[in-house]
Amino acid sequence: MLNFEFYCPTRVVFGKGTISELGRLIDRSKKILMIYGGGSIKRNGVYDQVKKALEGYDVMEFSGMEPNPKYETCMKAIDLVKKEGRDFLLSVGGGSTLDGTKFIAAGAMYDGEDPYDILTKGIRVKSALPIGDVITLPATGSEMNCNAVISRLSTNEKLAFDSEYVYPRFSIIDPTVTFSLPLKQTINGIVDTFVHTMELYCTYDVNTPLQDEWALGLLRTLIEQAPLVLKNPQDYETRANIFWCATCGLNYWISLGAVQDWSTHGIGHELTAFYGIDHGQSLAVVLPRLLKNRKKEKQVKLAKLARQVFGVKTSDDSEAADLAIERIEQFFNSLGMKTKLSDYGIDAREAAGKIRDRFAERGTKLGENQTIDAQVSYDIVAAC
Amino acid sequence: MLNFEFYCPTRVVFGKGTISELGRLIDRSKKILMIYGGGSIKRNGVYDQVKKALEGYDVMEFSGMEPNPKYETCMKAIDLVKKEGRDFLLSVGGGSTLDGTKFIAAGAMYDGEDPYDILTKGIRVKSALPIGDVITLPATGSEMNCNAVISRLSTNEKLAFDSEYVYPRFSIIDPTVTFSLPLKQTINGIVDTFVHTMELYCTYDVNTPLQDEWALGLLRTLIEQAPLVLKNPQDYETRANIFWCATCGLNYWISLGAVQDWSTHGIGHELTAFYGIDHGQSLAVVLPRLLKNRKKEKQVKLAKLARQVFGVKTSDDSEAADLAIERIEQFFNSLGMKTKLSDYGIDAREAAGKIRDRFAERGTKLGENQTIDAQVSYDIVAAC
Repeated sequence: MLNFEFYCPTRVVFGKGTISELGRLIDRSKKILMIYGGGSIKRNGVYDQVKKALEGYDVMEFSGMEPNPKYETCMKAIDLVKKEGRDFLLSVGGGSTLDGTKFIAAGAMYDGEDPYDILTKGIRVKSALPIGDVITLPATGSEMNCNAVISRLSTNEKLAFDSEYVYPRFSIIDPTVTFSLPLKQTINGIVDTFVHTMELYCTYDVNTPLQDEWALGLLRTLIEQAPLVLKNPQDYETRANIFWCATCGLNYWISLGAVQDWSTHGIGHELTAFYGIDHGQSLAVVLPRLLKNRKKEKQVKLAKLARQVFGVKTSDDSEAADLAIERIEQFFNSLGMKTKLSDYGIDAREAAGKIRDRFAERGTKLGENQTIDAQVSYDIVAAC
Repeated sequence: MLNFEFYCPTRVVFGKGTISELGRLIDRSKKILMIYGGGSIKRNGVYDQVKKALEGYDVMEFSGMEPNPKYETCMKAIDLVKKEGRDFLLSVGGGSTLDGTKFIAAGAMYDGEDPYDILTKGIRVKSALPIGDVITLPATGSEMNCNAVISRLSTNEKLAFDSEYVYPRFSIIDPTVTFSLPLKQTINGIVDTFVHTMELYCTYDVNTPLQDEWALGLLRTLIEQAPLVLKNPQDYETRANIFWCATCGLNYWISLGAVQDWSTHGIGHELTAFYGIDHGQSLAVVLPRLLKNRKKEKQVKLAKLARQVFGVKTSDDSEAADLAIERIEQFFNSLGMKTKLSDYGIDAREAAGKIRDRFAERGTKLGENQTIDAQVSYDIVAAC
């Protein structure tokens, strides 16, 4: 096991009816900016629940936070925060809204010229406004981590930052709000959670048996729960289990002291930045080809996964690893998730070329062994 | 899954050489009271490492915190804290030292007459001194929870309290400090961790598949790692895995939204209070008999455990549950842990009578269904 440090001060309030507890979680003196997306929270009743719970509070609203939250949108919110003296940010929506809120929280307190430097120059955040959230989509795990991914329209970039200052003070997770989720978003979220777990598990072995047990247990649970939610989207228990899997897929509990990868995300982000395909779709396309390409580096963990998740019997690790990759793609397909670039009308060689050029320019090296350079990325994407 | 709330702001710093990071974790302005036990930290070098890391700090020492930390000892420390204006408590030792430190932290800020009321009258703690710890024994999980168990000599009582205010600000876990642990303490710690996991897992099913996966994964890991540590107590990887299992056995990650039991601890605490046997020993004695006695209530989870941890094949749940109980006791015995009261020179009927009388007087009801009353406790202990 590697040395590690872990800190997560987020208070998770999980279950039916928990939005009504907002009043207990935010001090009444706060000047709240409520941040949300395109209006789905008005259709599904979440907006009304939040407003009711915050009766008597000073609440301003900022709507229009989009999927793959944009730097440009966040900057508008930062202006509003400063102009109106807002001192508490409440994100109501999915991981994109929350990621945007994290950037707003850090950007509003940033003392340099342009908060974009946090994303491009690796400048460490030194303070941020307090954040709380009502998370409505099981996918990114943003509700219990201190990461955010922000896109910039003008440059076709999608970049990440992290800071302990942007941990939500609290996250309210009420699985009933997901009853009305479109099927596509439910599936995207399941795939996102699956791939987070893979990024945290499927690297090289540093003797972390408990962490491996938990990662594989999470994958088994997802595989068990996914068909249940497709069959009955209104079943509370299934929705609750899937949401808790999503949160635990990226709160790092399954990977402390283990080695992480993140190359599927690194390449997937570029596909989203260039072509606008959903985050979950980009991951479903990249993961199988990336695992195949890096099979030698990941063979021990892939074989373990094959046996313990898919019940593969062969004693040959190479064969087991191949079967794991096949079965993962089959699982994605079984949810109706397409796993080839051509399914999304994207030419694989063209995409591969664009990503190779960008990675070459940036000197990008991805993966737990930093072996995925521009050329390897080309090979992976061209095979997608 | 049940509704739940979870909050744990403890910063965990895990790995080789981490004691040297103390200086980063405590503000230099703090007036530290360093609390430790009987001197083992002087023999194994931990004391020297701590003192070196805190060179230049204002550090006073309080030694003599005993296993099953005593109210009487804690009160002496509280007097010292007040007299000397100490404003940061650093626990260096095992879970007992840390539990005592938690009580001192709360007791020093208690504005009532006697802090013992926190234990007996359920009075909620409203503030506490900040705590940090270097935890040296994998067992209680106290390093990542907000519970403490305190014993009182004058009344033969062993009682628990919890408060978010007594979460350690940080916990340093350096597995190398456990290389010199006596075999008996290593085994006690493994049994303690095993039983914590059982208290959190083995109740009735409320549809928590991920939590069950994690609990059973933890048990499998313990069963796999335990013989390795007995064979080679100096192996860092094994010591690290066992320590992380112990922390995760009682930081509640495996049980959020599930039902908890705690009756084995409830009865075990009485055996320790009356007869002074080790905490781990008391649990190893009580657990198998308690599971047998409450088999009907726990059968579904016991059968799942039998199949997924011990590979039991039978499709009959009752038979599988019996086998699970047998195999658990065999596992304890395989570590050299004795599981009968007579092994410790205690007359089972006498002990059962004492505990029955005390529970009857207090009106105690234990277990996830509150079905373990004075008479059932008698039956369980008499069978031990």
